[in-house]
Amino acid sequence: MDIKAMKAAEPRLFGMATALRVLAIDAVETANSGHPGMPMGMADVATVLFDRHLRFDPKAPDWADRDRFVLSAGHGSMLLYGLLHLTGYPGMTLNEVKNFRQLGSKTAGHPEYGHAAGIETTTGPLGQGLANAVGMAMAEESLRARFGKKVIDHRTWVIAGDGCLMEGISQEAISLAGRQQLSRLIVLWDDNGISIDGKLDLSDRTDQLARFKASGWEVKAIDGHDYAQIDAAMAWAKGNKRPTLIACRTHIGFGAPTKQDSAKAHGSPLGAKEIESVRAAYGWSHGPFEVPEAIRADWAQAAARGAEARAAWEGARAGLSPARQKELDRVMSGEAPAKLGRTINALKKQIVADAPKVATRKASEMALAAINPAMPETIGGSADLTGSNNTLTDGLGMFDETDRKGRYVYYGIREHGMAAAMNGMALHGGVVPYGGTFLVFSDYARPAMRLSALMGKRVVYVMTHDSIGLGEDGPTHQPVEHLAALRAIPNMQVFRPADAVETAEAWEIALTTQDAPSVLALTRQNLPTVRGKHSTKNLTAQGAYVLAEADHRRQVILMATGSEVEIALAARELLEQEGIGARVVSAPCFELFAAQPEAYRKRVLPAGPVRVGVEAAVQQGWDRWLSGERGRDAKAAFVGMESFGASAPYDKLYQHFGITAEAVAEKAKSLL
Amino acid sequence: MDIKAMKAAEPRLFGMATALRVLAIDAVETANSGHPGMPMGMADVATVLFDRHLRFDPKAPDWADRDRFVLSAGHGSMLLYGLLHLTGYPGMTLNEVKNFRQLGSKTAGHPEYGHAAGIETTTGPLGQGLANAVGMAMAEESLRARFGKKVIDHRTWVIAGDGCLMEGISQEAISLAGRQQLSRLIVLWDDNGISIDGKLDLSDRTDQLARFKASGWEVKAIDGHDYAQIDAAMAWAKGNKRPTLIACRTHIGFGAPTKQDSAKAHGSPLGAKEIESVRAAYGWSHGPFEVPEAIRADWAQAAARGAEARAAWEGARAGLSPARQKELDRVMSGEAPAKLGRTINALKKQIVADAPKVATRKASEMALAAINPAMPETIGGSADLTGSNNTLTDGLGMFDETDRKGRYVYYGIREHGMAAAMNGMALHGGVVPYGGTFLVFSDYARPAMRLSALMGKRVVYVMTHDSIGLGEDGPTHQPVEHLAALRAIPNMQVFRPADAVETAEAWEIALTTQDAPSVLALTRQNLPTVRGKHSTKNLTAQGAYVLAEADHRRQVILMATGSEVEIALAARELLEQEGIGARVVSAPCFELFAAQPEAYRKRVLPAGPVRVGVEAAVQQGWDRWLSGERGRDAKAAFVGMESFGASAPYDKLYQHFGITAEAVAEKAKSLL
Repeated sequence: MDIKAMKAAEPRLFGMATALRVLAIDAVETANSGHPGMPMGMADVATVLFDRHLRFDPKAPDWADRDRFVLSAGHGSMLLYGLLHLTGYPGMTLNEVKNFRQLGSKTAGHPEYGHAAGIETTTGPLGQGLANAVGMAMAEESLRARFGKKVIDHRTWVIAGDGCLMEGISQEAISLAGRQQLSRLIVLWDDNGISIDGKLDLSDRTDQLARFKASGWEVKAIDGHDYAQIDAAMAWAKGNKRPTLIACRTHIGFGAPTKQDSAKAHGSPLGAKEIESVRAAYGWSHGPFEVPEAIRADWAQAAARGAEARAAWEGARAGLSPARQKELDRVMSGEAPAKLGRTINALKKQIVADAPKVATRKASEMALAAINPAMPETIGGSADLTGSNNTLTDGLGMFDETDRKGRYVYYGIREHGMAAAMNGMALHGGVVPYGGTFLVFSDYARPAMRLSALMGKRVVYVMTHDSIGLGEDGPTHQPVEHLAALRAIPNMQVFRPADAVETAEAWEIALTTQDAPSVLALTRQNLPTVRGKHSTKNLTAQGAYVLAEADHRRQVILMATGSEVEIALAARELLEQEGIGARVVSAPCFELFAAQPEAYRKRVLPAGPVRVGVEAAVQQGWDRWLSGERGRDAKAAFVGMESFGASAPYDKLYQHFGITAEAVAEKAKSLL
Repeated sequence: MDIKAMKAAEPRLFGMATALRVLAIDAVETANSGHPGMPMGMADVATVLFDRHLRFDPKAPDWADRDRFVLSAGHGSMLLYGLLHLTGYPGMTLNEVKNFRQLGSKTAGHPEYGHAAGIETTTGPLGQGLANAVGMAMAEESLRARFGKKVIDHRTWVIAGDGCLMEGISQEAISLAGRQQLSRLIVLWDDNGISIDGKLDLSDRTDQLARFKASGWEVKAIDGHDYAQIDAAMAWAKGNKRPTLIACRTHIGFGAPTKQDSAKAHGSPLGAKEIESVRAAYGWSHGPFEVPEAIRADWAQAAARGAEARAAWEGARAGLSPARQKELDRVMSGEAPAKLGRTINALKKQIVADAPKVATRKASEMALAAINPAMPETIGGSADLTGSNNTLTDGLGMFDETDRKGRYVYYGIREHGMAAAMNGMALHGGVVPYGGTFLVFSDYARPAMRLSALMGKRVVYVMTHDSIGLGEDGPTHQPVEHLAALRAIPNMQVFRPADAVETAEAWEIALTTQDAPSVLALTRQNLPTVRGKHSTKNLTAQGAYVLAEADHRRQVILMATGSEVEIALAARELLEQEGIGARVVSAPCFELFAAQPEAYRKRVLPAGPVRVGVEAAVQQGWDRWLSGERGRDAKAAFVGMESFGASAPYDKLYQHFGITAEAVAEKAKSLL
């Protein structure tokens, strides 16, 4: 549909949409940076969505039962900022719009979760938003099953671009959503046929409708500039029993005389001359950033629509029993249940008493067996390694269309989709997701894991088979660089517990840290219980601590994590037998150790004794602790991996790669 | 089809296939570890392929014009080892089969490229082999266009499992292959309906035939135990004008009385009792690892089939002109052209003379503009960031079905698929792939990049926008941990050149290192030429070197990479102005520096002076150089990033995060 026909058919909607277009054009021009083409193309779809379909109330942006709106094509951020500004979200002032892409503004280059109310997720890395939305829709289904349709009854809407659909993660998201029959998930695909390199045909000819249909979606193609078609398609989608794709055929840079339908409209300012022409084409006579009062009023009307629904919801919530109200509020606030601490403590006490020799993946299962009944908001799962990750505990039930009360998700062989869906669950709130795969396959999930950390969301990654200790599967399955690579991500808590006690402690921290994700790196092979004495204090929360003190004069500090703590303890014995005093420091979490006061760190790692680090992984990341934070603290060495692993029984591999108590003791002595 | 019918229809093929099945069963049982189910299920398909269709000659495993066979479902490694053993590939003795999964054997848990002839790629991480195969098929098309059908005329065959098709990378591979109309690519999908967690239906209901069709593939479903159907489908596939998917409906653990069609057959030994029963079901009366002579003779016959084709090929090759013969041999050997060194040297000389102020991404384009004409085997591309990565040079031409001589691939928004396809190209040989994306999106490509390193293949990753220096796009697009994360991967060369000279040198090293991949981390922002004097020696090859010596007594060493070398040089000026002598070390490649003799490293970083590292990235990975390799060398500090980035113009960000000459100088002084 062309501008003339659009204006004739729906002057109000055209005005509202064009306000979005012009704000995007002006903001990008002012910043001299950004992406005008997508907001210009998708403004009509977004306007119909916000005016007629989306359940939202800018006066209560955190309303639990709001629809979630995800701008998966995050480069079109000005579309979202324009919507939030015109509908009156708190803090999204015109000044913020004018400060697009400037330091400290709410209006970052891509939407950043936490910068402003109404930004439901951080997007920009393509495909992530779409996959987040799958998790949001799953969280909604879970909460609806738990708390009832009167208080949980909303949808998740996504705007996705060609880039989102080309990224592999989209297939994982689409096929998971199709299997799960997430009827509350509606994807609006900006089908504009253009990518950065030019015509999409340069790189892709996929029939997307057929592709989505193959995964069990309802699909429909419409003219994305025809308000009636948009409206009808959204109404139809809301009635579907399966997830829905609406292919919105749009023109990127809609209305720009020389740049419409071209990659030139994608990622650069239009320029003064083109802007003049496109304003004329729209019939928009207002200055930069000016939106006439009438159009502001139309947007205010759209924004007011949700108030009634929200009021009704407050009533429904009040109709819950006090206990259920409190529980709904608790899970939506993200607060862990009060009894979690007691549960973990009881488990720790039991472990110290039993001193089991178990793999930490098994210890994690023991922890989950205690946690899951105590914390009904957990939703577990695995990327098709349930029996290896030990992520399923009794009575969770399988989450799918036949049982939305089920709390275990068979994610399939979709590590990336799983991680991004877990982000979506955590963002939605009300549920606490954990999911498993092998540590080496954190690589597959990494872009989404980075976003967990960037957004500061509580997602728990259960990553077993955490070293050459997995044995015969060989180097493709043996992580050597993954601990370092994960520790390199800011705000990511990487735990490598040494025994069942530390594993329980790591779980406690992971579940009570609301502003960061956690990785639990767990062994396949059995480990002894190294914590000999029960402590109600969570020692893992200190990141590193003295596990065994030197008997003789302390000349050596051995610092180790996970399965190598056992080796460090044995090396300590060897050294002590020779009269060399050696302390063993267990360091289950570098990040938490770094966050301790300097005085504590110095107590654990005093200057003077030589230091040997032990971890069946690359050295990178260890030097900070070994040499001292400013250098010169100590002579130091490291026993670990310098190459990829190999295929053999695990005890043979430890020998082969020289990660043994003897080697550690020798290394320490060589420094004395 | 059941065993009785199979035997009746094709007793020879049934015997051959059952030899594969039993070898797999026995090897897994002996190792007490491994995956028998897949080889048991796919043995019939593999037998027909090797007996009737695959173009191969075990006497010449490196024959340039052989078909490539990729076992994407790498856990079924015993199927491949059985095939290589029975067809007589060099070194694949029965003893190796018996040593399955043992230290030092050729028969690792998953197929490891380089361990034995006939292993065309390392597989195990799911979906990778399928995506490698796309690159192999592209390399074949490219070489056929260049050298003619008489010497390059082969196919790429893949066995892929459900896991391969669920991984997101498969969508990138499938849609790229479809767009490219890779008619020589044939995928045999082991459609057994089982994954590790149980029935596939737990997690997936995708109509795979419809999905592949949506990306432009020819598709057909067959009974994977019906030899006639298998044979007919393969013959049909060879005539197709598009890539082909053959869905082979099979039974995992075929013939095992209690474990067939169950996840129990997937990843564990069958056990003595089940093995006895399945042998009886097959009518196989031979002992463990015994293959009767008649069946060995049948396999020898299959193996002999290719000798004639290979002889014909030798003739065709001899028919090429001597120059073209030599060129074909050269590109297949992987040797870079002799003139490459001269080309790079001329460019370096010119750069030093001109001293341009350009972004290193632009410097990379300058290098490529010189390299691509001199090295006709390069195949460039980008994951839809051509204009940002500066990867396209004049005259390359677009590679697609209309022009197989084109040398530039529009990979689309498929970083992971691109990386894996490049692995496939490098494995195929004859071409040298490079491909671009933003450094932050190395996360999307990481599983394939790891395999480049593990396999030791020359793949060049052009990764621009390498820090907060990219500016307004914000933290989702700003790498802070990626340099560390890539440096953590063994055998990965990570270059971060400081100017156009170092960029040219990095390219030279990347293209002449045949046994490792390289990452070129390049800036978006302009940088001065810091190398003031031309040197024919490649200084970047030393990893780190003294760029500017102290004038006053040397009290400080400033070590920096890439865009921060300019800052270190400015900090040096500030210090010298105060009478504090400061050396600047440019460190474009940590891995190459680590590989230098200790004496050289000590000359560059002598003990004594305080050291400050400068990189707009996390500190992890730096401490080794700052504190000294065994600690205690020097007092040290680091100026870089401690958090994610932010959205703002880049100069504002450098100020905001305190990465400035002033901060570096202050930090140095604080240590004195």
